[in-house]
Amino acid sequence: MTHVSLESTVAAVRPADQPAMAAARELQGRLTKPAGSLGALEELSVRLAGVAGTCPPPLPAPAAVAVFAGDHGVHAQGVSPWPQEVTAQMVANFLAGGAVVNAFARQAGAEVTVVDVGVATPPPAGDGLIEANVRRGTRDMTVEPALTRDEARAAVETGIRVAEQLLAGGAACLLTGDMGIANTTPAAALIAAFTGCTAEEATGRGTGIDDATHAHKITVVRAALDRHAPDPDDPLGVLASVGGLEHAALAGFILAAAAHRVPVIIDGVIAASGALAAAAFAPDAVAAMVAGHLSVEPGAAVALSHLGLEPLLDLGMRLGEGSGAVLALPVVAAAVRVLHEVATFDSAGVSEK
Amino acid sequence: MTHVSLESTVAAVRPADQPAMAAARELQGRLTKPAGSLGALEELSVRLAGVAGTCPPPLPAPAAVAVFAGDHGVHAQGVSPWPQEVTAQMVANFLAGGAVVNAFARQAGAEVTVVDVGVATPPPAGDGLIEANVRRGTRDMTVEPALTRDEARAAVETGIRVAEQLLAGGAACLLTGDMGIANTTPAAALIAAFTGCTAEEATGRGTGIDDATHAHKITVVRAALDRHAPDPDDPLGVLASVGGLEHAALAGFILAAAAHRVPVIIDGVIAASGALAAAAFAPDAVAAMVAGHLSVEPGAAVALSHLGLEPLLDLGMRLGEGSGAVLALPVVAAAVRVLHEVATFDSAGVSEK
Repeated sequence: MTHVSLESTVAAVRPADQPAMAAARELQGRLTKPAGSLGALEELSVRLAGVAGTCPPPLPAPAAVAVFAGDHGVHAQGVSPWPQEVTAQMVANFLAGGAVVNAFARQAGAEVTVVDVGVATPPPAGDGLIEANVRRGTRDMTVEPALTRDEARAAVETGIRVAEQLLAGGAACLLTGDMGIANTTPAAALIAAFTGCTAEEATGRGTGIDDATHAHKITVVRAALDRHAPDPDDPLGVLASVGGLEHAALAGFILAAAAHRVPVIIDGVIAASGALAAAAFAPDAVAAMVAGHLSVEPGAAVALSHLGLEPLLDLGMRLGEGSGAVLALPVVAAAVRVLHEVATFDSAGVSEK
Repeated sequence: MTHVSLESTVAAVRPADQPAMAAARELQGRLTKPAGSLGALEELSVRLAGVAGTCPPPLPAPAAVAVFAGDHGVHAQGVSPWPQEVTAQMVANFLAGGAVVNAFARQAGAEVTVVDVGVATPPPAGDGLIEANVRRGTRDMTVEPALTRDEARAAVETGIRVAEQLLAGGAACLLTGDMGIANTTPAAALIAAFTGCTAEEATGRGTGIDDATHAHKITVVRAALDRHAPDPDDPLGVLASVGGLEHAALAGFILAAAAHRVPVIIDGVIAASGALAAAAFAPDAVAAMVAGHLSVEPGAAVALSHLGLEPLLDLGMRLGEGSGAVLALPVVAAAVRVLHEVATFDSAGVSEK
């Protein structure tokens, strides 16, 4: 497969195609609707033309969600009320089709693939599981780097390989998903490292923690940042010191989508932290990113703003799994479909103002 | 058909079913996700259980959009830059499948029905058209009442009949659509009349008008309100004096959905003005309403706030046709699907915190 190394994938990322974007803007102006009346969907259709390099861009179907699962040494610091074994239990739930992302994906007609990139205990084999475990959970980032650079690279390249496999299977749109008890803690550290915001600004309540646990979680994130002083110009170093295996894999997954000029819908705060890493590797990768929704996690807004992305949905969600990305898929599809199917004033014989 | 009169339909509207809502809340707490992590979708699922009177409520499929089309005497006052004949031309575009609402409906798997309730020139017959013209356009509300009370009632009962027909055909969810050049002007007057807001607060730029036309449009709305002093406790009188045929039909359509305990997705400012009329006829009808999106038109926010409804989407849209309602349909379906398909902690063997 091509682009399987991080470097070749980064090298394949190209800027948005300006002529295709101009063609999409011009076409939007001729369709039977008042100019601008589709708001954010019009700008989205223009961006997607820029990603694809053609107007109209292809419909985002079939679409494929990859749920990258991993565990976290920092769980030992008491940042989550959930036991670590829930990561593996939820992997089993995804494979059985019983999780929210499965229900949403059935609704949207998307395929769910689960990737064990870092779960602490081996999940049972199952249809829809890719076994690509790099390490059975990260180290505790408050004590030592979460990963070696080689482990971080292996996780990034796992994400690239998963994307390549889904694209080779015909996927025209990739969606980011994640599972990992305690994984909002490294996400907050990554967001602070890449954007320069504080631990307080990046750290939220994850699955729903009380004030005392939230305050403690902020000190944990701050301690990890203080210990490693990650350099945002060295994204592999950032991922290794304060990241997670699913975060690193998502960075690679997003990079590979951009390298193949396929849109990738960013879910919540975990995916957004991976997107920051992807943008640090290859700034032009942002062109391929669509922000599916605005998570309640405060770091999500910080990350999306840093990337210059406007989320499509804002429904007070904070589940992860890819749920917000899958929920946004029909909106993305509708934006593209307009360019394919709506009549022009001329073709429909409708008078202009 | 039952409920075909306004009075019998109003009488059939019942409050939300509290035990079904309690059952949905309880079920949400047992599903394999952190409590509350689906945000607005959880509350939506509870409301839809209340509408249906059962938990889980039925999936909103098949779904049917009715696009009510009408013309407006107030167009003569220069409130829109578009010629009136565009209403009929767009009806033809809907029937040919070339408008945005058609593209969105194909994406969402919804059926589009176009209803001529008040177009100025007879549209050509076509598949998907219901010919139910009450009057070939309203009178100019700045000069005289837009409709007689009998005409307003006939339009409301047309909306009821269309809903009954779509429900008899199997629709499990109704979506509101509209087409009518100049129809944001009576919508603004209706919103001011029902909520008590000012003409300035209710009046927007519709399809996109310049500052001078916008200022003029506000004076037109104010003049109509001053002339008729509509009484919000007499919704038929409000619809007759400052309404439109499609607005009145939408009020009936929404009432019939509520009477049949089927959810109805409200599109933009035209549908929201009809929803205010429906709520004035039968306050419990609000339980069946789902606000699909927040239109850019300022009156939409005023109306939804008056009804106590939170819009699902906010994408800067201002097209009408039902486009925002259809775009929200997959979100509504996803909210319901969670109650049907997601495993519980118990059934999936997932540990709780």
